[in-house]
Amino acid sequence: MKEAIRIIGIDPGLRRTGWGVVETLGNSLRFIAAGTVKSDDKMDLASRLCQLHEGLSTILHQHMPHEAAVEHTFVNKDASATLKLGQARGIAMLVPAQAGLKVAEYAPNAVKKAVIGVGHGEKQQIHMMVKVLMPKAAFDTSDAADALAIAICHAHNRQSFLGSGRLAAIA
Amino acid sequence: MKEAIRIIGIDPGLRRTGWGVVETLGNSLRFIAAGTVKSDDKMDLASRLCQLHEGLSTILHQHMPHEAAVEHTFVNKDASATLKLGQARGIAMLVPAQAGLKVAEYAPNAVKKAVIGVGHGEKQQIHMMVKVLMPKAAFDTSDAADALAIAICHAHNRQSFLGSGRLAAIA
Repeated sequence: MKEAIRIIGIDPGLRRTGWGVVETLGNSLRFIAAGTVKSDDKMDLASRLCQLHEGLSTILHQHMPHEAAVEHTFVNKDASATLKLGQARGIAMLVPAQAGLKVAEYAPNAVKKAVIGVGHGEKQQIHMMVKVLMPKAAFDTSDAADALAIAICHAHNRQSFLGSGRLAAIA
Repeated sequence: MKEAIRIIGIDPGLRRTGWGVVETLGNSLRFIAAGTVKSDDKMDLASRLCQLHEGLSTILHQHMPHEAAVEHTFVNKDASATLKLGQARGIAMLVPAQAGLKVAEYAPNAVKKAVIGVGHGEKQQIHMMVKVLMPKAAFDTSDAADALAIAICHAHNRQSFLGSGRLAAIA
């Protein structure tokens, strides 16, 4: 008998990091939990990164996922925003790796393709499809919904990922 | 009697993160140690961030600094390079913060000003001045020398920093 695989998807951000946990067994997909880890923007950067690390570590401890997936975002706004995102993303990848999990990376269009069937589309379309695929899904923020979409993307792609023996960005 | 303050400077990078520890007492400056934490570029990103975290944690444990300083770099090359740097920088700020240290950030021109007296100059000039300021300084890489320069910069600026009650980027 096959065992269900529990996946955590993470949508990193310095202010808000979304997370979503799903279980996959064969073709079935089950919502487990989702939420948002926030950092206090009145605190200095190092303390905020600590808050994200603590928050994500607690979530991992609570839900004990087997595998992790993080969105591979490119921010085009400016270098300062990209640096900020990178810092949060570093923590988002570190926490599951420290727990011994493999961490997959997916480009935004791969996430869209997995959830809405095509490589482009609006945020709302993604959130709607997350609810269609998992009617019991509940999320407090847009970031948590995005994190669930990333987890769904990994549920669809994990076989080819693990088969290839490496975890890298899929465009 | 005043006590010596031990400072760790960190120059973050995904491939090589330089670190340097100095001690300051009044106007005197003493070299303690410097080195480089490397990550294996054949491994996936999450594992490399783990390597940086482990390496820096070991250094902190060995040298027990009281305060930390990290360079606030802006990479203008491209978004991908900036994202990579941000990820390494997230780890470089997280590790001392997890150990309860205050983490100061300094812009590159502030580091140059503290070490060579003006806000511009070549890398070699900085490395030479690190040796002039601390003749016993030894460093294995350019990144370790830069990390020592960041530590020296904090030794010069820490009073105004702590006086202001906050640690933020000084231009």
